[in-house]
Amino acid sequence: MVEPRTLALDAMGGDHGPEVVIPGAAISLVRHPQLSFIFYGDEARIGAVLDQHAALRAKSRLVHTALTVSMDDKPSQALRRGKGSSMWLALEAVKTGEAHAAVSAGNTGALMAMSRLILRPMTGIERPAIAALWPTVKSECIVLDVGANIGASGQQLAEFALMGAAMARSLFHVERPTVGLLNVGVEEIKGGDEVKDAHAILKGTDLPLDYRGYIEGDEIGQGKVDVVVVEGFAGNIALKTAEGTAKQIGQYLKDAMTRSWASKIGALMARGGFKVLKHKMDPRRVNGGTFLGLNGIAVKSHGGIDALGFASAVDLGYEMAQSGLLERLGSDLDGFHHTLNKTVQGAAPGA
Amino acid sequence: MVEPRTLALDAMGGDHGPEVVIPGAAISLVRHPQLSFIFYGDEARIGAVLDQHAALRAKSRLVHTALTVSMDDKPSQALRRGKGSSMWLALEAVKTGEAHAAVSAGNTGALMAMSRLILRPMTGIERPAIAALWPTVKSECIVLDVGANIGASGQQLAEFALMGAAMARSLFHVERPTVGLLNVGVEEIKGGDEVKDAHAILKGTDLPLDYRGYIEGDEIGQGKVDVVVVEGFAGNIALKTAEGTAKQIGQYLKDAMTRSWASKIGALMARGGFKVLKHKMDPRRVNGGTFLGLNGIAVKSHGGIDALGFASAVDLGYEMAQSGLLERLGSDLDGFHHTLNKTVQGAAPGA
Repeated sequence: MVEPRTLALDAMGGDHGPEVVIPGAAISLVRHPQLSFIFYGDEARIGAVLDQHAALRAKSRLVHTALTVSMDDKPSQALRRGKGSSMWLALEAVKTGEAHAAVSAGNTGALMAMSRLILRPMTGIERPAIAALWPTVKSECIVLDVGANIGASGQQLAEFALMGAAMARSLFHVERPTVGLLNVGVEEIKGGDEVKDAHAILKGTDLPLDYRGYIEGDEIGQGKVDVVVVEGFAGNIALKTAEGTAKQIGQYLKDAMTRSWASKIGALMARGGFKVLKHKMDPRRVNGGTFLGLNGIAVKSHGGIDALGFASAVDLGYEMAQSGLLERLGSDLDGFHHTLNKTVQGAAPGA
Repeated sequence: MVEPRTLALDAMGGDHGPEVVIPGAAISLVRHPQLSFIFYGDEARIGAVLDQHAALRAKSRLVHTALTVSMDDKPSQALRRGKGSSMWLALEAVKTGEAHAAVSAGNTGALMAMSRLILRPMTGIERPAIAALWPTVKSECIVLDVGANIGASGQQLAEFALMGAAMARSLFHVERPTVGLLNVGVEEIKGGDEVKDAHAILKGTDLPLDYRGYIEGDEIGQGKVDVVVVEGFAGNIALKTAEGTAKQIGQYLKDAMTRSWASKIGALMARGGFKVLKHKMDPRRVNGGTFLGLNGIAVKSHGGIDALGFASAVDLGYEMAQSGLLERLGSDLDGFHHTLNKTVQGAAPGA
């Protein structure tokens, strides 16, 4: 059933603030008419843009604050000085239950630190993770952690698998999402201890997911699994490297299509095909990283994105809020930790 | 000055053995007439292919062995059972000085283990690394470690920087190659301790390279630096992810150009441009990982490559052998360890 959902939007976040956030929300509202919004930030600036979007205005509330988190603030500074900022208030609205999810295009480190402080990790979760949507030749997959932490224990990686599976269940509508553990291919060094531990846990525990074992970096884009699990350092580097490679090939393609008149005319004739390609490669289609493992939904949009891209992040927040993700994840994690404890106690009968 | 150079080739390595290795060597010989070869492997199979390449045959010697390392052998098995195999003999020829470099398309883990055992790490090097050539929008860069080890200390990362710089000096002919340390972008978690340690060492030590600080995954393909330093787990995942992304976009492009008659005709008109693009994206252009930090040059070609791709690996072995890389690297490393020891002693005057 489709229920009304309220999103809390940090209207001042990102490179453009309300000029992107408001039109982005307007696009998302057309797609999901059951949405309503609370915008946090400078009343005058937000109001001026909102006046141009009558339908959105009718579904919106505005909460003024003059305080904003700058893109350059360190997370510790943001925590110290950011109380009452547009980012802070949006997250607090999720905590109090006023809103079902928060979306911000602001400073990633600050948003992560504030989300953690305000929404708090779920019971038994030491390390929340950032999950990214990753386009594949089939459709999309979820990769996590893409940079909330450096390193992760075997148990933490297994928790990432559960979090990613819960997200996949709500976004892709599959009951038992397939999960792969990102690893390196060379036999000799296959897996550090943490990766091997996670593999053993995921193989040996009855979990609400379909664990497919190790996968390698070149298999992510082939859509081999719904969820790819990796610790945050390698995950962040993989994500950035894929973005960089796509950009690099885009440059090659542009150079190749403008190098002669024949190429230019050919490219013009094939413009329908190029339009499809451009759409496929458009980073705005899958904009939005999600903090998973917190008692609330917080979505991070790219800072430099336009309204169409911001709308993708709003859509993501909406879909996750709509699906009962958190309740289900909470019970999945409880079950997992219960099983782990039993195993540990079973293994140490003297305890 | 261009001097004659002998390469030791594992003729049985890779998916196709002599049928790819011999024609590959023939292509490289045309480019570098001062080359000569020793082929190790099955005499009858090698001889049959060599008979079709008269010019190569005149510059080649054949050493028979019936023993080969299989693509499925674990490194430990390969070490136990592989003595006298085509891979083993090729590496031994480098050790004895019969050959200036060894090239194999065989089992990576086995080649790494054997290279290490036979050629031995250079003085003071605990961890040899695998360096890969990475195409950039400008030309190429070197990325290491792409999978010899999981994890690396700050000092080991600094040694990787020196090794990569030595390789860049011989391949790109720049005296002080630029070096970047691969890191994640999120301020809060920027760098694990090892990465921060390496940053401090590279910034604070007078080294024969131009250290440019941290770079992120999306900057590798932009050619921001000549050498990208990263520990092996994240490095391997980055390399595979970039390969996967390139393949994925290639599939998108093919689909886009065949979806309508107009696209097909346009693509045909623009075929000159597509040819350039295909060349740019051709993985055969930069085939070959190099083991750095050993007393000898060993190059690993992709196992599934064709003759043109294998020729790139042979070219790489030749260029590295030609440049006096190892002597120079040996003295760079001596200088570095000397400076580090002085710093450590200086910091602990009681010692």
